[in-house]
Amino acid sequence: MSEIAIKTVDDLKNLDRFYRANFINSMVGSKQASLIGTVGKNSCTNLSLFSSTTHLGSNPPLIALFSRPATKEPKQTLNNIISTGFFTINHVNEGILVRSHSCSFKFLDHESEFDSCALTEEYHDGITAPFVKESFVSMGLEYRRHFPIEENGVIMIIGEVKLVRYNKQYIQSNGELNFERSKSIAVAGNNTYYGLNKIKTLDYIDRSQKKILTKSVQDESNKTSKEISKEV
Amino acid sequence: MSEIAIKTVDDLKNLDRFYRANFINSMVGSKQASLIGTVGKNSCTNLSLFSSTTHLGSNPPLIALFSRPATKEPKQTLNNIISTGFFTINHVNEGILVRSHSCSFKFLDHESEFDSCALTEEYHDGITAPFVKESFVSMGLEYRRHFPIEENGVIMIIGEVKLVRYNKQYIQSNGELNFERSKSIAVAGNNTYYGLNKIKTLDYIDRSQKKILTKSVQDESNKTSKEISKEV
Repeated sequence: MSEIAIKTVDDLKNLDRFYRANFINSMVGSKQASLIGTVGKNSCTNLSLFSSTTHLGSNPPLIALFSRPATKEPKQTLNNIISTGFFTINHVNEGILVRSHSCSFKFLDHESEFDSCALTEEYHDGITAPFVKESFVSMGLEYRRHFPIEENGVIMIIGEVKLVRYNKQYIQSNGELNFERSKSIAVAGNNTYYGLNKIKTLDYIDRSQKKILTKSVQDESNKTSKEISKEV
Repeated sequence: MSEIAIKTVDDLKNLDRFYRANFINSMVGSKQASLIGTVGKNSCTNLSLFSSTTHLGSNPPLIALFSRPATKEPKQTLNNIISTGFFTINHVNEGILVRSHSCSFKFLDHESEFDSCALTEEYHDGITAPFVKESFVSMGLEYRRHFPIEENGVIMIIGEVKLVRYNKQYIQSNGELNFERSKSIAVAGNNTYYGLNKIKTLDYIDRSQKKILTKSVQDESNKTSKEISKEV
């Protein structure tokens, strides 16, 4: 227990600016690393690495993205989404990790990340935004609206899923994809990448099954206590 | 390539309701599994499993949570956050996975998930919400505001980080925590849990380093092509 550190908001204020940003960003835990595909008014395609894709609902299927404040430098992704009305979300996988991370490089407006980072454009009916062919799980979305979070100017973008594209062998019987098989990549903070190893799929326990719940809670709790007493 | 499946929005509409919900929710990829700790007006503590914690900014340190529509059943977590002004976010780890998942069971208002699921309350100065002692990475937050997403009534809750609690040995030199060491758990959809294995921390590449970028992109691309040609 002596290794547990507590930091208050005042401690956080005294940290180096970049260290603090990495620390706070990583504290929310692991997030999916995704490439957002768009196309600009100049017809140049764009890819940008995001880790803020958030499920908002399934009916209609809505997803949110968070973009840095509009006051900071031109936001190609946001501008392209608004002007064309479409974007794609493509899971980063192990085979394209370095290329995906490289999409964060500040390329110029007329330079496509697809060309510069050796990734391949793919198009599907009705979605006027490029998919990443090398990705195993992708969605095509239609832009719904965006608005600023008043506290810090971050832009929340809401999109509706219009098309999904995935490898059939990755889908489980309950409808959930298996991201160990798709080698999808999680990210913490801005820089640290993780592979996923599936532990298990747990069923929802309803009120008629309280005995099962009590037993499984007790089993895990006993196991942990045993492990702790072994260490002592 | 023949294994790639495409589903349009009409295909999605024809899926079984629960299958579709699992599918769409899991498509956004892996998310951090966290227990949200609160206390009710009746002084009973509450824990609820969320996978929607989203980083909104580091200065001030803001985090968003998404709660199901307020019209559906009493939302203890949301009500407790509003009435006390505080909540905690605690990473689920491998040792408490079953107990954390069990917090989704519909306990009654006067039943604490801490007792029912064999987890331990811990308190820190100024935060009137319980931390999960068994968690290795936790935050104490002050409620800022909440509002409904008009498209589907989902409630977005914004909180400000006031205290962080973590094991010192999990922090990397750049400020990011190592979630392989903390055995933090990711979740996809509502039911499938993953462990994280760290692949690498990649540095940001600035404009002066374009040669490095070009080489690393080329190296990965060649490697992948080689692997593909090996398979053929």
